[in-house]
Amino acid sequence: MSSTAGLVIPCKAAVAWEAGKPLVIEEVEVAPPQTLEVRVKIKYTTLCRTDFYFWEAKGSTATQLFPRIFGHEAAGIVESIGEGVTDFQVGDHVLPVFTGECGECRHCKSEESNMCNLLRMNPYRGVMLNDGKSRFSLNGNPVNHFIGTSTFSEYTVVHSGCLVKINPKAPLDKACILSCGVSTGLGATLNVAKPKKGSTVAVFGLGAVGLAAAEGARIAGASRIIGIGRNPSKFEEAKKFGVTDFVNPKDHDRPVQEVIKEMTDGGVDRSIECTGNVDVMISAFECVHDGWGVAVLCGVPSKDAVFMTKPINLLNERTLKGTFFGNYKPKSDLPSVVDMYMNQELDLDKFITHRVSFSEINKAFELMQKGEGLRCIISMED
Amino acid sequence: MSSTAGLVIPCKAAVAWEAGKPLVIEEVEVAPPQTLEVRVKIKYTTLCRTDFYFWEAKGSTATQLFPRIFGHEAAGIVESIGEGVTDFQVGDHVLPVFTGECGECRHCKSEESNMCNLLRMNPYRGVMLNDGKSRFSLNGNPVNHFIGTSTFSEYTVVHSGCLVKINPKAPLDKACILSCGVSTGLGATLNVAKPKKGSTVAVFGLGAVGLAAAEGARIAGASRIIGIGRNPSKFEEAKKFGVTDFVNPKDHDRPVQEVIKEMTDGGVDRSIECTGNVDVMISAFECVHDGWGVAVLCGVPSKDAVFMTKPINLLNERTLKGTFFGNYKPKSDLPSVVDMYMNQELDLDKFITHRVSFSEINKAFELMQKGEGLRCIISMED
Repeated sequence: MSSTAGLVIPCKAAVAWEAGKPLVIEEVEVAPPQTLEVRVKIKYTTLCRTDFYFWEAKGSTATQLFPRIFGHEAAGIVESIGEGVTDFQVGDHVLPVFTGECGECRHCKSEESNMCNLLRMNPYRGVMLNDGKSRFSLNGNPVNHFIGTSTFSEYTVVHSGCLVKINPKAPLDKACILSCGVSTGLGATLNVAKPKKGSTVAVFGLGAVGLAAAEGARIAGASRIIGIGRNPSKFEEAKKFGVTDFVNPKDHDRPVQEVIKEMTDGGVDRSIECTGNVDVMISAFECVHDGWGVAVLCGVPSKDAVFMTKPINLLNERTLKGTFFGNYKPKSDLPSVVDMYMNQELDLDKFITHRVSFSEINKAFELMQKGEGLRCIISMED
Repeated sequence: MSSTAGLVIPCKAAVAWEAGKPLVIEEVEVAPPQTLEVRVKIKYTTLCRTDFYFWEAKGSTATQLFPRIFGHEAAGIVESIGEGVTDFQVGDHVLPVFTGECGECRHCKSEESNMCNLLRMNPYRGVMLNDGKSRFSLNGNPVNHFIGTSTFSEYTVVHSGCLVKINPKAPLDKACILSCGVSTGLGATLNVAKPKKGSTVAVFGLGAVGLAAAEGARIAGASRIIGIGRNPSKFEEAKKFGVTDFVNPKDHDRPVQEVIKEMTDGGVDRSIECTGNVDVMISAFECVHDGWGVAVLCGVPSKDAVFMTKPINLLNERTLKGTFFGNYKPKSDLPSVVDMYMNQELDLDKFITHRVSFSEINKAFELMQKGEGLRCIISMED
């Protein structure tokens, strides 16, 4: 048992006081974990677009949830456990995940789904499930949680169903990026698109999720990986992820799906959409080959978007699927993804383009705003 | 070798002289089969909606292809074979199929596709591939073929890649219905939707294709099969095909997908769309459960239709697929479907609601126009 178990821990957290305004490092108090909860000492965290989106809170109803502690890609060490927690011990190396696995619901019992009914991602809740309250306080006032993780804090409390125990030998400053974006893209390819060895794969969007999808295609043995993006400065870096061909839609005066069909004798075998733009989704679907093509959507769409296509594109034996978190069940599946990294099947290092200390966390937001780099590791201890 | 091999055969055929006008039984001449072609003595044929659609030819460019011999669901016996045909002998029991399997193209070599590049269905061609001419003539003038089969004739010539050798013990007056509609619906369920034992399946449209999809769900062990149709007179008959629940969209003032979701605690495991109406396709997709639901489209859409849905319906791990001829590769797969019938796994008899002699073929058209019955067997010899 740690010396802090059962006690409120005062620590530093980066608090978002207002939508779109720089975070402020504050001294907060973190209450002990309650039933089925675990308190985690965060070692490394990163910034993912979902944090950015809800921090900007443009046109979102989540603005009422400020002040809030964002952050959901992270790795840490169990500090203490709440009542009823049997699958974690103090000192375990863990990844908090924004979506959970209760193990009991129809989704958890399904072989196919990872969309746990109880612990499914909910950005509109700022409190813990157990008592509907926050474990964070600042000068006696609660601070809202974010998607059950709130990793922009030296300590956080998460539901044990949203925590993944990983190989303790895995370096936490690398493994942390598996708790969201990289797994999303990697799983979209490996778990959902499932390209065969030698096949042709198109990846739309060359951010961290798209490049993780390309990495999945490389691991699966795709012979040709076509990266589609509007920013040619990304193309050089994408080669490291196995991307062999590039298409910039701006270079063509016809739909990019037609360009890709022409390049590939009728269409790619698999495509993965990682931008969330509905027009790109349509291109990603319509560029797959008839007879066997599979398009997988993993970018998050705006709520007003409408996907449109002629039904004959489906009738000609194309498949359209969406995925959430790469179809990984976090607790069941992520340990093996960490092991893929440890076995050098999966290369994570190339996703890490920047590093900052926790006190410089706003730099990570600036990099994302400028579209620079892939992942910026935020070290809690530097 | 048959006594007629190499000779022109005079025989009766039901010729469509004009769109939408009753067929006329005429004496036609059927030329011998050329390279890779087979001449078949048709024993039984039936009327399928695709014949009806191109016979009506409403808004279709295929009107220029009259006079034409329709018909594509049929069974017969090989009368003679053309040069290079190695997989058929005189006397083989066969099903002509409107789409073929060349065995050489990327589609034929793919495990997933049945959309042969060479012999894919083409309703806008009225001639044979080998020489671009018709094998039918009437008073010296050519009569157009229809989708490579033209089974409304006592003899027809088909490409050997569009012909399936079946178990000679199978009764041809039953097996004939496997050459199109029943296989389309059955395969949509068994090959594409693949419901698990105990699952819930929705079938949209309760014609022959829809009921074949339901029969597939029954064979797969679905625990609940929900039939959706606007004609309640079909509901009683559908029970024979394993349909357990009925929903008539006209009975509800909200989208039928919402009704189905409510009936099934969030959605069905699988749905199969067999009407071709794009609004029904959207309902069929949106009624499947998130996390694992799969919707399969097999109804033929109008060319101006647009499928529309919010992308979040996909992102929540639903799958949308289309199928052509139930994903059966005709030559490779149909013999085993005939054997399913012979082993009493598949019940075909209940699809056969009417029988007429060849001279009464227009009655089959009248029944279809009135929406009566499922399949009307047309006997060439009665």
